[in-house]
Amino acid sequence: MKISARNTFKGTVKSIEVGAVNAEVILEIAAGVEMTAMITKASAERLGLSVGKEAYAVVKASDVMVAID
Amino acid sequence: MKISARNTFKGTVKSIEVGAVNAEVILEIAAGVEMTAMITKASAERLGLSVGKEAYAVVKASDVMVAID
Amino acid sequence: MKISARNTFKGTVKSIEVGAVNAEVILEIAAGVEMTAMITKASAERLGLSVGKEAYAVVKASDVMVAID
Amino acid sequence: MKISARNTFKGTVKSIEVGAVNAEVILEIAAGVEMTAMITKASAERLGLSVGKEAYAVVKASDVMVAID
Amino acid sequence: MKISARNTFKGTVKSIEVGAVNAEVILEIAAGVEMTAMITKASAERLGLSVGKEAYAVVKASDVMVAID
Amino acid sequence: MKISARNTFKGTVKSIEVGAVNAEVILEIAAGVEMTAMITKASAERLGLSVGKEAYAVVKASDVMVAID
Repeated sequence: MKISARNTFKGTVKSIEVGAVNAEVILEIAAGVEMTAMITKASAERLGLSVGKEAYAVVKASDVMVAID
Repeated sequence: MKISARNTFKGTVKSIEVGAVNAEVILEIAAGVEMTAMITKASAERLGLSVGKEAYAVVKASDVMVAID
Repeated sequence: MKISARNTFKGTVKSIEVGAVNAEVILEIAAGVEMTAMITKASAERLGLSVGKEAYAVVKASDVMVAID
Repeated sequence: MKISARNTFKGTVKSIEVGAVNAEVILEIAAGVEMTAMITKASAERLGLSVGKEAYAVVKASDVMVAID
Repeated sequence: MKISARNTFKGTVKSIEVGAVNAEVILEIAAGVEMTAMITKASAERLGLSVGKEAYAVVKASDVMVAID
Repeated sequence: MKISARNTFKGTVKSIEVGAVNAEVILEIAAGVEMTAMITKASAERLGLSVGKEAYAVVKASDVMVAID
C-alpha cells in the first residue's frame, strides 16, 4: 500500500506501553532520534509490534507544525 | 514555551511553497531525512520562515501512526 | 505496508480538485457513500490519482468523532 | 448543529470498550463496514452510547488519507 | 446533532479568506479572543459562513496540546 | 519557542485525570470557559501539570471545525 501521508520514517520499536484501549509506541528512527506514537491497543496487537521489530512512523503533513526558537 | 507534543525535531527549512491560505514547508531534520508540514500561510509569514533557516517540526503523538512491511 | 490506522475503506476516485498546495479528493466507498480527503497536491500527483481509479480512504481512530441526533 | 466536517456516516454502535480516560467505539456504518472511533470516556458517557444505538461517525476531510495498492 | 468533540465555543465569524480548496475562518469566541479554523472551501460555502454570522468552533480533545512557559 | 499553531489560549489547569498511557487535562481559558486536552501521561508528568498551574491550550488551525445551529 502506498499512502498519501508525506512523512514515513523507518525505525525500530524501542518500547511499547499498553494501556486499557491505547498503546504508546516509541520508535527509534535514527541514531538517538525517537518518535512517539499513540495508537489503539488493538492496532499494536494486530501489527504484532514488539521491542526490536522494524516499523515505520507515518505522519500526515497537515499534522506537522513548525516552530522556531 | 514547553509543549506537550512528544515529537520535536530540529532541522533546517529546505523549501516553502506558499498557496492561497496554506503553505507547505519541508524541513531537513537529519542528513537526507525530510519532514513535510502543511501550515497556514499566515503562520509561515509570522514565523518568518525562509529557506536555510533553523526550525523545528513538532508532532503530537496521537497524530503518529505505525506501519510494518 | 500494514498500517495502525483502524479505518481503511476501498473505493473509487470520484473527483479531484487541485489547489495551490492541497487537493480535495472524493472517493466513493460504497454505493452512494462518499468520503472526502484533503491531501497535499504533491501526494495526489505522486499516487497518480485520477477519476475512476481504485483507492482507499484511511483514517486514524483518534480522528473519528461520534455524534447522535 | 451543522458542522464543517465533510464526512458523516450514519450507523449503529457495535461495541464500546471503555478505558481509564478514553473509549473505543465501533460503529457499523453499512452492512459489514465498520468505523472505529477513539473518543474520551466522558464523551461516550455524555452521549449515552450503548450497543445497538444509532450514531454517526464524523471525520474532518484533513484527517482522511488516500492510499493505493 | 450532539457530538463527542469536547470543545465547542460559540462565537462570531470575524473573517473568511477563501483559497482554491480550503478556507481560513477566524471566529471571535470571547471579547478579544479569536480562534482560527482551516476548513474546506466547500464547507464554508455549505454552511453559508459570512462575517458577523454566529458560529461555533469545535475541537476534539485529542487535538489539543498543553504548553507551559 | 514560537509555534505555527494558530490557536494558543492562556489558562489555568482545572483538573487532570490520569489514565494508563493518556491524561485528560481541563484548562479554564476564560471565566467559565473550559478547554479539554487529551495528552500522553508522560507529557503531563514532564510538564509538571497540577491543578491551579498556569498553562496554555494549543490547537492547530486544521484541527478546528466550524458549526452553525
